[in-house]
Amino acid sequence: MRPVSRARARREALAVALVDAAEKTIADEGLQGLNARDLARHVGCALGAIYNVFPDLDAIVHEVNARTLAAFEGFVAERGRPAAGKRRGHRAAIAELVDLAEAYLDFAAANQPRWRAVFEHHIAAPAAAPPDWYRDDQRRMFSLVERPLAALRPDLDDDERMLFARTMFSAVHGIVVFGLDEKLISIPVAVLGEQVRMFVTTLADGLITGGSRP
Amino acid sequence: MRPVSRARARREALAVALVDAAEKTIADEGLQGLNARDLARHVGCALGAIYNVFPDLDAIVHEVNARTLAAFEGFVAERGRPAAGKRRGHRAAIAELVDLAEAYLDFAAANQPRWRAVFEHHIAAPAAAPPDWYRDDQRRMFSLVERPLAALRPDLDDDERMLFARTMFSAVHGIVVFGLDEKLISIPVAVLGEQVRMFVTTLADGLITGGSRP
Repeated sequence: MRPVSRARARREALAVALVDAAEKTIADEGLQGLNARDLARHVGCALGAIYNVFPDLDAIVHEVNARTLAAFEGFVAERGRPAAGKRRGHRAAIAELVDLAEAYLDFAAANQPRWRAVFEHHIAAPAAAPPDWYRDDQRRMFSLVERPLAALRPDLDDDERMLFARTMFSAVHGIVVFGLDEKLISIPVAVLGEQVRMFVTTLADGLITGGSRP
Repeated sequence: MRPVSRARARREALAVALVDAAEKTIADEGLQGLNARDLARHVGCALGAIYNVFPDLDAIVHEVNARTLAAFEGFVAERGRPAAGKRRGHRAAIAELVDLAEAYLDFAAANQPRWRAVFEHHIAAPAAAPPDWYRDDQRRMFSLVERPLAALRPDLDDDERMLFARTMFSAVHGIVVFGLDEKLISIPVAVLGEQVRMFVTTLADGLITGGSRP
């Protein structure tokens, strides 16, 4: 254990303040609104001080995105799965997948700029690969999908299941992102929810059919 | 017919030059690279002259996006559907959907920044609804999906079919966008192609199952 140090405590406090400020900016204005100068002004530090605690702005965005992913996991855990207890086998697994997809939609709708930042980030900075701990966070999100998938298709091996979980996740993401964009024009979240339910149920039906085919 | 006018011909020529320059910038650097000052410099006109021919930059981006959509339609038409002729009924329809999704992936992979601009645009400018002609272009793209969908599910009415076509389109879009992003890290386009094929086939299986259910 390293000795307690006032300098380190100050660095820690500054790091937290910077992530807090970046989180607020992203939630209000999206990733576009973020820049080092305003961030320094918000927390009341010199511009250069940011780079004493973080290598670059990307590192701060990763911290914010990790918080958003954790908030999403909390949101899913809080909603629970009331339907799953009463059903068995395929029906329970399908209900779980539908619940997850609906949670995804509701969370994304309620946290749009923050949610977008999770997925837009490495578009803005293609050179910076996310740190390992952040990839683990992402994997944990995919694994939520893998469990019910295993119930629907016990014949898939680990790699196949992981790949399909990713595919399903990306597909729902596409529907949600498209739908929320269109919301500016016409699709209400309720209709989008119906779309997501129908989609997940149909895909699950196809998975079961594909699994029972010789 | 309006009389021929030198002034109008000049305006037309400037409009084309501006869209050409914007298209090049977007293809090279993406939407972020676009700004009025550089655009004026590239075509050799005054900054204010842009606004004599277009109300704003958004209008230019819509023109570029319309070209991209037209290029995609051309790409799909050029590839044809070799599989469709030899098969019938459900099999032909599934093959057509798989071909479309693969074309989508290949086109997106080969034209990444231009393709992203089509979907990111009203994220950048949420206030500006796209013009009607542009929405018609988008609808034509969805309608490519509706035809094979009608063969799989003749029981769906027009609205249901349109909604499912949109859903399917958005889902494939999500898989492609996610996959191409991940490509920076690991997923090669060939694996992504396999993922897209498996996905579309599974969804189509589910549609057929859902349609035959009482």
